[in-house]
Amino acid sequence: MSEHLERDLAAVLPPEGLVTDPDVLDAHRHDQADWAPAGRPRMLVRPGSTAEVQAVLRVATAHRVPVVARGAGSGLSGGANAVEGCILLSLAQMNRILEIDRRALLAVVQPGVINGALKAAAAEQGLWYAPDPASWEFSTLGGNLATNAGGLCCVKYGVTGDAALGLEVVLADGSVVRTGGRTVKNVAGYDLTRLFVGSEGTLGIITEATLRLRPRPPKATTLLASFPSLVGAGVAVMDIMAGLRPSLLELMDRTTVRAVEAARPMGLDGEAAALLLARSDAGGEQGVEECARMAAVCEAAGATFVAQSADEAEGELLLGARRFAFPALEKLGTTLLDDVGVPLSRIAELLAAVERIAAQRGVLIGTFGHAGDGNMHPTLVFDRNDPDAVTRAQAAFEDILHVVGALGGTLTGEHGVGLLKRPFLAAQLGPGTMRLHHTLKAAMDPLGLLNPGKLL
Amino acid sequence: MSEHLERDLAAVLPPEGLVTDPDVLDAHRHDQADWAPAGRPRMLVRPGSTAEVQAVLRVATAHRVPVVARGAGSGLSGGANAVEGCILLSLAQMNRILEIDRRALLAVVQPGVINGALKAAAAEQGLWYAPDPASWEFSTLGGNLATNAGGLCCVKYGVTGDAALGLEVVLADGSVVRTGGRTVKNVAGYDLTRLFVGSEGTLGIITEATLRLRPRPPKATTLLASFPSLVGAGVAVMDIMAGLRPSLLELMDRTTVRAVEAARPMGLDGEAAALLLARSDAGGEQGVEECARMAAVCEAAGATFVAQSADEAEGELLLGARRFAFPALEKLGTTLLDDVGVPLSRIAELLAAVERIAAQRGVLIGTFGHAGDGNMHPTLVFDRNDPDAVTRAQAAFEDILHVVGALGGTLTGEHGVGLLKRPFLAAQLGPGTMRLHHTLKAAMDPLGLLNPGKLL
Repeated sequence: MSEHLERDLAAVLPPEGLVTDPDVLDAHRHDQADWAPAGRPRMLVRPGSTAEVQAVLRVATAHRVPVVARGAGSGLSGGANAVEGCILLSLAQMNRILEIDRRALLAVVQPGVINGALKAAAAEQGLWYAPDPASWEFSTLGGNLATNAGGLCCVKYGVTGDAALGLEVVLADGSVVRTGGRTVKNVAGYDLTRLFVGSEGTLGIITEATLRLRPRPPKATTLLASFPSLVGAGVAVMDIMAGLRPSLLELMDRTTVRAVEAARPMGLDGEAAALLLARSDAGGEQGVEECARMAAVCEAAGATFVAQSADEAEGELLLGARRFAFPALEKLGTTLLDDVGVPLSRIAELLAAVERIAAQRGVLIGTFGHAGDGNMHPTLVFDRNDPDAVTRAQAAFEDILHVVGALGGTLTGEHGVGLLKRPFLAAQLGPGTMRLHHTLKAAMDPLGLLNPGKLL
Repeated sequence: MSEHLERDLAAVLPPEGLVTDPDVLDAHRHDQADWAPAGRPRMLVRPGSTAEVQAVLRVATAHRVPVVARGAGSGLSGGANAVEGCILLSLAQMNRILEIDRRALLAVVQPGVINGALKAAAAEQGLWYAPDPASWEFSTLGGNLATNAGGLCCVKYGVTGDAALGLEVVLADGSVVRTGGRTVKNVAGYDLTRLFVGSEGTLGIITEATLRLRPRPPKATTLLASFPSLVGAGVAVMDIMAGLRPSLLELMDRTTVRAVEAARPMGLDGEAAALLLARSDAGGEQGVEECARMAAVCEAAGATFVAQSADEAEGELLLGARRFAFPALEKLGTTLLDDVGVPLSRIAELLAAVERIAAQRGVLIGTFGHAGDGNMHPTLVFDRNDPDAVTRAQAAFEDILHVVGALGGTLTGEHGVGLLKRPFLAAQLGPGTMRLHHTLKAAMDPLGLLNPGKLL
């Protein structure tokens, strides 16, 4: 049967578009979620066009073989992991920026374009592609769309879905649909764009996207504030968001700060319960003033140290420390990077609960993330060769998700459900909403061939 | 059969929740789209709770009777018009603001809450509910969500859907689902919130919404610019959007300006091809400076008159003229208010085409709208008692939609498809995307009871 499948795929793809080399397959089985299982793919296909994606899906449908789409494999939930016996469909070859329309403020791209490549191309036109997941230098726009990726600038400029004006999508049966268009506002029919964004390859395969560009914001002024208590940091986040418009509002807890300092000493306050890093891109004097107002809010909330800088190099240095949070924690052991969201008012409670869980379970947990959106990344550090440590880490991971549920939060803010969060989704959504998910999945992919066992 | 239906509805509703008085029914048959046909409803129900909405839908399902949901009836596409023999389901009684969480920056509301009531309640907490359709003083939030209503502030702050964090929705079979939640970022499952937003009551009935609040922006500085050519105005809009972040960017063409001046003389330039009205809410000196930069862009694009004011009363006066555009055109005859969107780069072409169509068809057309989003409202004025004039207006209306299609635009930017745009939807979406719409509709409402014949 595999031979027939291979023959039929070979008939619709160029020679370099069909790969069966076991080493290459093995290198493409996994995304970056170490904990999530991955099956063995039957083959890897690398279509170069929408028509080839259609052809692959028609063959897959004829053979009833599952298809798992992938971009750069930088996902953090196992969403792009191979399913046993699947066709892995890499969009990496479809990596052309088809159009940048400077006057309409949009770009049309293929899904394999790297986020940073679009940023660079937009910048050449004096424009800005806003969404900035931590992986922006290597993740693809198709993957960003499939997971509705977030990032640091979301707090002011929204997530990937907010930049998606329209999509071209190949459905399970190989047919093509176009959603949305080239306008900012559009209510002609259902919002299918948003239905595909974040659907993790389970409803269709994005083969083209029309993305919104923006004017480049003015240079940012940066603020660093050090808090002796988690509650104080949480109050500062709420009060900043209630009155101002930071272009970035990030938090690092003590464990994270110490990990960063241990790897790259730069004088961050390792005694603080939490550091806040904030930016204003209001521009010029207004940016300095907005930063000063954020500083005053921090001081009123009990910050013991507050420093502000309009110097770009200094700002980038501080931002670099925040971006280094995860790599620094990775140096301490095996990591499990979590991704949870809570209402803005519950951040301090979340942080305190994570500290408590870390102590109770005997697991090192560093928490950092996008405080202004209530989206945090508790990162569990353990020794993967110590079975007891692994068990305790697993228990702590589940404890955190329970706390998030109790706080009215979400089990994933920007990384997606994938495999890692799938066992917990039903508890958050409830039976009615889960049923509706299955209704939509069954209607759009009746044979269940698109990334089966992910998300749902 | 009607008697059995009435008996079964009476069993699940309080006496005041079931209305069969022909005069009341007649008063509720229509929204504000004069041109769209309306059937005669069998009865009007006014549920007071989600449980009562569920009970009504269970009865409707048992009797196979269509259900048309409505809020204030201020829609502009016939989306809430009665279908012959339907149950009209008014959400107007479900008008409580259930919660304003100042610290989490959100409100939980029932669908019958008036947009302006939420704005006022948010303001009491020092916060802001941004979405501002022209109908904000009398339209309901449920209706705003069902149509994904836009407004003037969208250009900076997004449309209604951008403020929707979560929904409670009753499906056709009477079951309840909850979508989204209380967090800003959330990728746990499909984006069902956005699927229901803008679905015009065809997929489910929104019974509760969790809406995002924001800090109140600083006081705005206002700019008025007068252009001798449409092309100049179009260039100014593009150049402003490519470099700055106006909190409002509206346009009125000559016909509109003259109608406003005729009804309320205030010295607007009736010789100009178009006026632009722009605002910056960057705050303080920065707002004044951003407005000055917009003024410079207008001058470079050929504006013959540019005036800027940081005085709030003066700004409101100018804004009042823009808000008076439609009422002023209504004074000239019967109106057909259209709602189309084009890519930002095509605004001047759209305006020129509308002028040409007006001349060719012999129809007065005033165009105004949200230029910064490419979302314009060509408004046809004619004598409804003159059959020839009606025919010419109808032809002009269709001409405009064809032009919009040719410009890569959308046949509705913020008013919805309803009945008015339904005949034209397939041409814009194409057969594959239409088929997917029907697939979703059939999966979620297999008996086709929810607002049948609207949108699709």
